[in-house]
Amino acid sequence: MDEVRLIEVKQDIHADNERVAEELRQRLAESKTFLLNLMSSPGAGKTTTILSTIEKLRGSLEIGVIEADIDSMVDAERVASQGVSAIQLRTGGFCHLDATMVTRGLDGLDLGSLDVVIIENVGNLVCPAEFDTGAIRNAMILSVPEGDDKPLKYPLMFTVCDALLVNKIDYLEFSDFDLEAMRERALRLNPDIQIFEISAKTGQGVQDWAAWLSREVESFFRR
Amino acid sequence: MDEVRLIEVKQDIHADNERVAEELRQRLAESKTFLLNLMSSPGAGKTTTILSTIEKLRGSLEIGVIEADIDSMVDAERVASQGVSAIQLRTGGFCHLDATMVTRGLDGLDLGSLDVVIIENVGNLVCPAEFDTGAIRNAMILSVPEGDDKPLKYPLMFTVCDALLVNKIDYLEFSDFDLEAMRERALRLNPDIQIFEISAKTGQGVQDWAAWLSREVESFFRR
Repeated sequence: MDEVRLIEVKQDIHADNERVAEELRQRLAESKTFLLNLMSSPGAGKTTTILSTIEKLRGSLEIGVIEADIDSMVDAERVASQGVSAIQLRTGGFCHLDATMVTRGLDGLDLGSLDVVIIENVGNLVCPAEFDTGAIRNAMILSVPEGDDKPLKYPLMFTVCDALLVNKIDYLEFSDFDLEAMRERALRLNPDIQIFEISAKTGQGVQDWAAWLSREVESFFRR
Repeated sequence: MDEVRLIEVKQDIHADNERVAEELRQRLAESKTFLLNLMSSPGAGKTTTILSTIEKLRGSLEIGVIEADIDSMVDAERVASQGVSAIQLRTGGFCHLDATMVTRGLDGLDLGSLDVVIIENVGNLVCPAEFDTGAIRNAMILSVPEGDDKPLKYPLMFTVCDALLVNKIDYLEFSDFDLEAMRERALRLNPDIQIFEISAKTGQGVQDWAAWLSREVESFFRR
């Protein structure tokens, strides 16, 4: 085995985002709007998960969506075609959302008529984990085809999330994804993370996730 | 259908990376080292593709690897266990490699004994596309489970790459991935992009991709 050498390449990339995020949370508490920040790799199924979650909660919670995308509006158009209030943030190449961008997105929605706003963050397991968007809760999707080693490679994402949706579980039987190994890796990073196994496409498991979200929203409203 | 509103959020994120990249290409021309920058989402199969490519070219080209990772050394250890010269760049949270980081990685390899160095960039379809690493050629992997809409959402990545490896084609039969639609979308962005359908795990299609890479290396050596 050849020897592996290691070089550290660090860079400071933060500004006063934390302050803006706290101001935003103050505003959300006043308007009684629950904000969920949903993150994942590209193609893990964020939009489909959002649509199936809204479907499960229809009639009990009014939900709006902030879609972040580098350069397209396909996701927002898909969400809006389901009759959901949606706003598109086009980041022009920027790789994550910060609290200032989310504030601008919220300005474009009628918060008085919404109980919950879901942010579909840029598809990226790295940068979005580093920037507090001002959300009340963070959730991430890991899809089965991405592999069970992702907690080892993108630990911060698993650390900052309250919930982990393991999506595309219908792929499990064609895959060498080790669900138990992934769970152990995720829980080692974050013992409090809530793990849900779902297929956003078939709807399998979405009920449990939606019930958890619903309880989190109620608890936020009671504060 | 609800109306979709659009907000542009742009930010300038470039420095003098271009100059460093050009200096690096000059150095590669002198040392006769072909540098390939391989990019993809997390979990698309970069490490497995690199290993199967090296396997196909063993005996004809000496290949070293620069592994970029946020926080782990699992990929470099996996590559080194196959007897390949590997160096790990740990980016400490940074979401892409730039030409300066790659220069530091090359400093850690014995270029005199290598024909080709493959950079396994950070798993991310956004930021790595924006930073010239100094590579001679760029390639990307799109894996079938990520979906055929990725050219619409991450257009810059498809624009800057010379080759597109559609990986995990063994998933095609379980998926609604439309290969023709994806090809059209990719070719609309970049009519010159070379598209290869592969399964890095089974080895299917890797021969054609390795042959293309081999021709590119020979043409670089003849310059």
